[in-house]
Amino acid sequence: MTGNWRPIGVIGGMGPLASADFITRLVLGCGATRDCDYPRLLLDSNPHVPDRNAARHGGASPGPALAAMARGLVAQGAQVLAMPCNAAHGWADAIIGAIAETPAARFVNLVDAAVARVLALGARRVGVLGVAATLDAGLYHRPLQAAGIEVLEPEREAFGACIEAVKAGRHDDTTRAAMAAIAGALAAQGADVLIAACTEVPLILTQAPVPLVDATDALVNATLAAARIG
Amino acid sequence: MTGNWRPIGVIGGMGPLASADFITRLVLGCGATRDCDYPRLLLDSNPHVPDRNAARHGGASPGPALAAMARGLVAQGAQVLAMPCNAAHGWADAIIGAIAETPAARFVNLVDAAVARVLALGARRVGVLGVAATLDAGLYHRPLQAAGIEVLEPEREAFGACIEAVKAGRHDDTTRAAMAAIAGALAAQGADVLIAACTEVPLILTQAPVPLVDATDALVNATLAAARIG
Repeated sequence: MTGNWRPIGVIGGMGPLASADFITRLVLGCGATRDCDYPRLLLDSNPHVPDRNAARHGGASPGPALAAMARGLVAQGAQVLAMPCNAAHGWADAIIGAIAETPAARFVNLVDAAVARVLALGARRVGVLGVAATLDAGLYHRPLQAAGIEVLEPEREAFGACIEAVKAGRHDDTTRAAMAAIAGALAAQGADVLIAACTEVPLILTQAPVPLVDATDALVNATLAAARIG
Repeated sequence: MTGNWRPIGVIGGMGPLASADFITRLVLGCGATRDCDYPRLLLDSNPHVPDRNAARHGGASPGPALAAMARGLVAQGAQVLAMPCNAAHGWADAIIGAIAETPAARFVNLVDAAVARVLALGARRVGVLGVAATLDAGLYHRPLQAAGIEVLEPEREAFGACIEAVKAGRHDDTTRAAMAAIAGALAAQGADVLIAACTEVPLILTQAPVPLVDATDALVNATLAAARIG
């Protein structure tokens, strides 16, 4: 593996630990053998992006902050942009608009990458382990239902509590058990595939009773594929 | 814990996995509970920084690349700069010079942070688990010897092979055993403290036969202390 990569920019901080997890997985996924054979990685982990769930109930839009981050990363040299946050993809258009005048730059969509994996599995009924902002925006509902796939949602209050726990640094056994129970309930309802549709989920759920599509992993692969030259 | 932090800029990529480890530890060290309570973190993980060991034998200097990264991070808003690479601290002056005209920005020195921990332990004879560039530049020798502490060096060839293995993604049991043997040999030679003086070391050595000062951990703490407001 040579050092032929386009520079990667990560629109991060949603949450911060999920961004660190994404960076780690990108590095491990490169298959490089020396420092100089890795891609350049630029991260902007920004705590000032307005809350995605609150935005769907009258709060400030994350769009302008995400657009500013995208522009800043591209100004620093990034050509492939990725955002390890499912819910924030409800504002993906703001990012795409922000980089529209930079033909060398492209945005790799996490939801598209995850949905492609679900379709490849031949799923019929999918449990989407995502937060309210992801579910209410229909980020997964629309493409899955368009493919004739039924969508099941997690119990929202319990799921949201798990995600907040991870953001507060409690990716512990209690939180893991709670997330496993939520995943188990969806499988019991007939889900034949689950999607870890929140970047905090893979930090506390690595096994499930049915095949689990890790949207973060799908984004890692899609990002590296887009960044690799030749 | 509130969101009162100065933005942190990480001069990274030396190596890439060590930078990801540093970012992860910074996030976990914040003690924050919500996305908005974390500091802004900017990372430039750059594969184009000239090799630190080669630079000491006539190769290109890393100084200009490090200076450019520092300026870029400060331009993006970083006020506290940290560099998770011991050997690159041989060119710390290039970074300090690059940000000299930005009074709000400061560079947190990893070696200073690690040496302070060693001195607090009352060490008499210290094994420095660092690469040739770190040892030959006297980065740890000078401050430790000035404090009357004897410095022991690892077996260089075996140590260098371990570090290259980590950079190639092989932070596995074989590499861990090799590093444990190197640490054990230094303790057998009378070292009463060891320093993980290469940011790859803590990825493969978490226990040692004598107290182990993790320079990366010292930098995490010093960086967060410098970034915290009030």
